[in-house]
Amino acid sequence: MSKDTSINIGLCGFGTVGQGVWKHLEQNRAELAARLGAPLRIAAIAVRDPQRKRAVKLPPKLLREDPLEIATAPDIPIVCELMGGTDLAHRVTLAALRAGKIVVSANKALICEHGAEIFATARKHGGHFFFEASVAGGIPIIKALREGLVANRFPQIYGILNGTCNYILTQMEERDAPYAEILSEAKAMGYAEADESLDVGGWDAAHKAAVLAWLAHGLWVPPSRMIVEGIERVTPADFKNAATLGYSIKLLAIITRDFASNEVSVKVHPALLPDHDVIASVNGVYNAISVTGDVVGTTLYIGKGAGQDATASAVISDIADAVALLRSGKCVHLNSEVAPLPAEQASAGKSGEGSVAASAVTLAPLERIHGRYYLRLTVRDEPGVLAHIASIMAQHAVSIASVLQTPSEDPEMASLVLTTHDANERAMRDTLHELSRLKVVNGAPLLLRICEFNT
Amino acid sequence: MSKDTSINIGLCGFGTVGQGVWKHLEQNRAELAARLGAPLRIAAIAVRDPQRKRAVKLPPKLLREDPLEIATAPDIPIVCELMGGTDLAHRVTLAALRAGKIVVSANKALICEHGAEIFATARKHGGHFFFEASVAGGIPIIKALREGLVANRFPQIYGILNGTCNYILTQMEERDAPYAEILSEAKAMGYAEADESLDVGGWDAAHKAAVLAWLAHGLWVPPSRMIVEGIERVTPADFKNAATLGYSIKLLAIITRDFASNEVSVKVHPALLPDHDVIASVNGVYNAISVTGDVVGTTLYIGKGAGQDATASAVISDIADAVALLRSGKCVHLNSEVAPLPAEQASAGKSGEGSVAASAVTLAPLERIHGRYYLRLTVRDEPGVLAHIASIMAQHAVSIASVLQTPSEDPEMASLVLTTHDANERAMRDTLHELSRLKVVNGAPLLLRICEFNT
Ligand SMILES: NC(=O)c1ccc[n+]([C@@H]2O[C@H](COP(=O)([O-])OP(=O)(O)OC[C@H]3O[C@@H](n4cnc5c(N)ncnc54)[C@H](OP(=O)(O)O)[C@@H]3O)[C@@H](O)[C@H]2O)c1
Ligand SMILES: NC(=O)c1ccc[n+]([C@@H]2O[C@H](COP(=O)([O-])OP(=O)(O)OC[C@H]3O[C@@H](n4cnc5c(N)ncnc54)[C@H](OP(=O)(O)O)[C@@H]3O)[C@@H](O)[C@H]2O)c1
Repeated sequence: MSKDTSINIGLCGFGTVGQGVWKHLEQNRAELAARLGAPLRIAAIAVRDPQRKRAVKLPPKLLREDPLEIATAPDIPIVCELMGGTDLAHRVTLAALRAGKIVVSANKALICEHGAEIFATARKHGGHFFFEASVAGGIPIIKALREGLVANRFPQIYGILNGTCNYILTQMEERDAPYAEILSEAKAMGYAEADESLDVGGWDAAHKAAVLAWLAHGLWVPPSRMIVEGIERVTPADFKNAATLGYSIKLLAIITRDFASNEVSVKVHPALLPDHDVIASVNGVYNAISVTGDVVGTTLYIGKGAGQDATASAVISDIADAVALLRSGKCVHLNSEVAPLPAEQASAGKSGEGSVAASAVTLAPLERIHGRYYLRLTVRDEPGVLAHIASIMAQHAVSIASVLQTPSEDPEMASLVLTTHDANERAMRDTLHELSRLKVVNGAPLLLRICEFNT
Repeated sequence: MSKDTSINIGLCGFGTVGQGVWKHLEQNRAELAARLGAPLRIAAIAVRDPQRKRAVKLPPKLLREDPLEIATAPDIPIVCELMGGTDLAHRVTLAALRAGKIVVSANKALICEHGAEIFATARKHGGHFFFEASVAGGIPIIKALREGLVANRFPQIYGILNGTCNYILTQMEERDAPYAEILSEAKAMGYAEADESLDVGGWDAAHKAAVLAWLAHGLWVPPSRMIVEGIERVTPADFKNAATLGYSIKLLAIITRDFASNEVSVKVHPALLPDHDVIASVNGVYNAISVTGDVVGTTLYIGKGAGQDATASAVISDIADAVALLRSGKCVHLNSEVAPLPAEQASAGKSGEGSVAASAVTLAPLERIHGRYYLRLTVRDEPGVLAHIASIMAQHAVSIASVLQTPSEDPEMASLVLTTHDANERAMRDTLHELSRLKVVNGAPLLLRICEFNT
């Protein structure tokens, strides 16, 4: 590459994130060129609807009708996939990687669904896939895990990975307001999507957890094999009960690995987090990730988890790494000079692969996933009910730690909040199944998990 | 480099950090080889006293008498300088860089004193200088600033950079105990050095602040041109007063840049931090750094700031980056293919240089460094004293925000705690100078700074 040639970048997608990348590449043009040793040029942009009004005007001469055109254009070595979705984005990503390009992506849903294929394609064709923006917005957590903490194995990673849920839970807690009210407000203010289900159901956090679990343990865990529970059924009363017990409620993603059994578990669910845990005080649209490494101990990362600017910051850091890679002349067929690693294995650096030999790692069965639980039931307010419930729990070896009974709106009913000692997921599931079939129990019980991390 | 050759590493120094690096490279040997695509081998070790008893036994055949031998050995491309000091360490570092090697360093004192020369030497001879372990132990803050947040300019960086001071302050606060008592305890437990002055005087944090300021702003600021104040004069009473006002006390390093005037300021001093600031609750030997970027907003990093294992984690991450660089065949004369940057400028990536064109940046004069202040004076308990003090402050345009008067041990004296509205350093210095000369003021007044960051 000659020293005065700028480096061409293609943007597939020019929505929230794409326009943010454009804006900041423009604003910091000279400084970035100095830092990277080469000027950057956005050479082509693809959108669905060229007529759409945008905050940043789309320069007509850059417009390409088809993002696949950008993916395959020989003069565009860096392709940013900022469309979202798992169909066209999938085809664009694979096409660019097959052309030996560097793909920069913010698309956690795509990575979660097709990660194994994407990285295999990159490896095969000498392409590279960078994805800092896919998890935790502007927090450089991907780089921290794969480079900064490369000396470590990771027994525990947990945190807040979805800003929408954290915003809703924070508002519910602060204003003692019901979920539905806060949700519709959040939609009106643009903090939640029109279709909120991906966020509030925990699926977006699950996609991100899949990316982190793969980085840390070399294993692709589809959400269907995680425990994934959303925030829809959390009520203001749960916040009050939690506060009484000394906890806050957060939607957490939790990735643990037991290095003795070599079992990994990935969970996303609302959790009672003790007030002394720093993450319990991370509010609003912020994300936070606690990473425990066997060498470094626990490190904690906090920052905005989404939004145009924070996400653009992450995309641009990947572009910078892509430029460094291009300038080192190592883009195409990076791995041709070294022995290829087995597909499940990983190599560090930014070669677009994971970071840990994962051959022997398996998913932990429900029996070996355990913790303490918070259980809220609406029950008939009559003698013997608590005894009955307690005996069912005892049959499943679930031992009760505390009981809180409060009146319900219906005078014939009472709200019963139980916390348990350590129990396993299988036992809790069986218990829950049996409890929910009791005539004295009204509606489905709510199960939350109590998370006291050793950090 | 052939694919099955291991990569030789030399350790100059085999003390706390050196032995940690050895231990973890040993323990994770296979996994690291898989991650890095090449096995690592510690090929040589230099110490001062080969007979010394160590937790990790020094393999005799690896011993070299002189660290300079390792620095110049042609078969050792990666040299870890883990001796400390700024004399021999300086010579070893320069010799290795002149040989085009990659030097990995944990030595913030050296970088602070000789950084400009070190990076110029690296540039000139195609060597590289990596220094993740020099600031904030295992927290990958160097990588975050120079790579993960490369899209950003940094109006504000602040945090706790010295674990010893944070341990002492935390203990003083929690146990209502005087400085001297906690210090001697900390020495006995190995949390403070026999000669504590570098830590408690703020100098170690100043060295680290210099490294961060250079990374963020491309400017070498020697501690003599910073505001540096230590924790020695903070008393249990100050913690009580601070608590009354809603603050905790932390030794902070604060690096600010005003992009309008292009002025940078670097300060290290005990600060009153409001309880709602997450960093106010970072206790014990932990470090924490808040980084505000113009694109990403504020991100926060917390982790162990020192210690054998956390520091080794950082050294090993630099070794991993060094290996990636070597494997890309780009070690020697990396910059020969691109136009050289002016010495004050910087290029990103791991090319051993800073990250920002800094040509126009200057240090802010005291008049433009400002904030709120906490002032504690021991004064004669007699009429007119407060009026006198207030009038002196008013003459310097320092406006009082609150006054707290408490009895002193000496019945003729009173302790006077004043907080100010926004004032500048020059005005405060002049005020302090004048106040300390008053007959009614006993001993030197204590000045602390109140830090309410907009994050
Ligand atoms: N927004 C965030 O804060 C955030 C944070 C982290 C990650 N992400 C991820 O970043 C990606 C983009 O998110 P976003 O919020 O920027 O989405 P967005 O605002 O909806 O923008 C999507 C862009 O892709 C274009 N596009 C969609 N389908 C297309 C097609 N068939 N052909 C050509 N162009 C097409 C759209 O074109 P039109 O403009 O013509 O409709 C639009 O410009 C997603 O993967 C998302 O998960 C977003
Ligand atoms: N300790 C930490 O937690 C920490 C954290 C961050 C950064 N650092 C930095 O890391 C560096 C090393 O710190 P450390 O705590 O590991 O120091 P240390 O325990 O005192 O070890 C220093 C090592 O260097 C060797 N050495 C000293 N002078 C020498 C000479 N003239 N020739 C050959 N070898 C010599 C010593 O040899 P002998 O063993 O024979 O005395 C010893 O092995 C320092 O720059 C420090 O600031 C330390």
